[in-house]
Amino acid sequence: MDYNQLFEQIKRKKSFLCVGLDTDITKIPSFLLTEDDPIFEFNKRIIDSTIQYAVAYKPNIAFYEAHGVSGWKSLEKTLNYLNLVYEDAFVIADAKRGDIGNTSKMYARAFYEALRCDAITVAPYMGKDSVVPFLEFKNKWVILLALTSNESAKDFQLLNIKDSESNLFETVLEKSKEWGNKDNLMYVVGATQAEHLKEIRKQVPDNFLLIPGVGAQGGSLKEVAENGMNDYCGLLVNSARAIIYADSSADFDRNAGKKAQEMQLKMAELLKAKGII
Amino acid sequence: MDYNQLFEQIKRKKSFLCVGLDTDITKIPSFLLTEDDPIFEFNKRIIDSTIQYAVAYKPNIAFYEAHGVSGWKSLEKTLNYLNLVYEDAFVIADAKRGDIGNTSKMYARAFYEALRCDAITVAPYMGKDSVVPFLEFKNKWVILLALTSNESAKDFQLLNIKDSESNLFETVLEKSKEWGNKDNLMYVVGATQAEHLKEIRKQVPDNFLLIPGVGAQGGSLKEVAENGMNDYCGLLVNSARAIIYADSSADFDRNAGKKAQEMQLKMAELLKAKGII
Repeated sequence: MDYNQLFEQIKRKKSFLCVGLDTDITKIPSFLLTEDDPIFEFNKRIIDSTIQYAVAYKPNIAFYEAHGVSGWKSLEKTLNYLNLVYEDAFVIADAKRGDIGNTSKMYARAFYEALRCDAITVAPYMGKDSVVPFLEFKNKWVILLALTSNESAKDFQLLNIKDSESNLFETVLEKSKEWGNKDNLMYVVGATQAEHLKEIRKQVPDNFLLIPGVGAQGGSLKEVAENGMNDYCGLLVNSARAIIYADSSADFDRNAGKKAQEMQLKMAELLKAKGII
Repeated sequence: MDYNQLFEQIKRKKSFLCVGLDTDITKIPSFLLTEDDPIFEFNKRIIDSTIQYAVAYKPNIAFYEAHGVSGWKSLEKTLNYLNLVYEDAFVIADAKRGDIGNTSKMYARAFYEALRCDAITVAPYMGKDSVVPFLEFKNKWVILLALTSNESAKDFQLLNIKDSESNLFETVLEKSKEWGNKDNLMYVVGATQAEHLKEIRKQVPDNFLLIPGVGAQGGSLKEVAENGMNDYCGLLVNSARAIIYADSSADFDRNAGKKAQEMQLKMAELLKAKGII
């Protein structure tokens, strides 16, 4: 999916919601455990009930890898389902990969080709040659970790760099602009980092930002939109727990849909306020 | 496996060799392609023929993930084989993971419990709370990326930090010493970074260092040992391509064994020179 197609989806659905498929077998409704593949079944129902309100889905790969081969099967089935039934959905593998060049290329093939994801999250620590192999696939995206939502983000990301006006995450933004552009590169910026969002938006005015941390982790949607939205929206706001575990009854999917709709309605207001819809 | 057990293995085998199982289906001998699981079959023969000379094995997870469910099966079979047949081998999942706390915990379970690896490589960018969940497993190890072997390591790892005498990778070493110790924390230092090894050894005198980049990537074993060896050896030197793809004939495994033996003999000399054996 390219930049314009993503923007069209956002306008059509009046939403920049990404649903995080952090599917944990110990947290899904217990009646699903009798299914052949409870994780896939859960995901399928969550997707069906939220697809009207969400432009993107983000399976967190750890939750699937934790179950080995069977987890990987659930992941493949989930991604196949998204690709076959809802081809307009933007699919992000939240994998936080990054390795020497030939290895990054293997990861890129795994997630872009075998699993047909649109995007993958990548960690920047190893520098340019660990990221560029992911940027070489047409209409596929790197979502580079910039300023993450966790408390310890400050340990390294906020360190000031000598002989510069920048800290580490700003240096990551600056250098990575030489490797990619708004058409193949997004950034992860935690919603808990709203005070930095305005500056980040100045530094990368056109790139999409993937914003985790709204909801369970405490970030505010309104603040994120005020500080981070650009003329093409430029935001994908992720919510996982607050939507997918809203309820554990037989109606869990309908209630997840309601939670997604609540967020979508707020997002529509924010898109209107910006004159996008 | 704990620190002393690892040191005992090193003395017993007179080796600090780690064989990298970067198994690429396009590079293995073509006669193996008729096997049910060519990747596992290749790994099994490589392990059988190198186990006398190697204390550790390091599957690079990307090479398995690239094949989806079937790749994950090959990985599980390889790790089961190592655990069942050669329980003294130290097994490293080269995964370079790292995520918010609850996600890192999922990865830890996947690699330590489900796959029974001894160690996993972890990227430090997200800070303490992304690393600590991996440190909480008894007799399991984090191998934290410090100074990697790739050209672009300099992009961020060598940036000097304001108001300190350290660059980024030195700051990673310093901070991480507060999170773990020589019994659960090792560091990745590329063999191509020999000029930094002496300083790194001063900073973390007791921790093991995992050294990739000897051989195909150009690093020198002798330089690594001179600058990085401590009284408990403190080194695991990884070699992948130079051993596993030494030859593609029907005798590929025997020739891989010879290459491993060549390295082991050099390592024995270096261990003797240090008075360890």
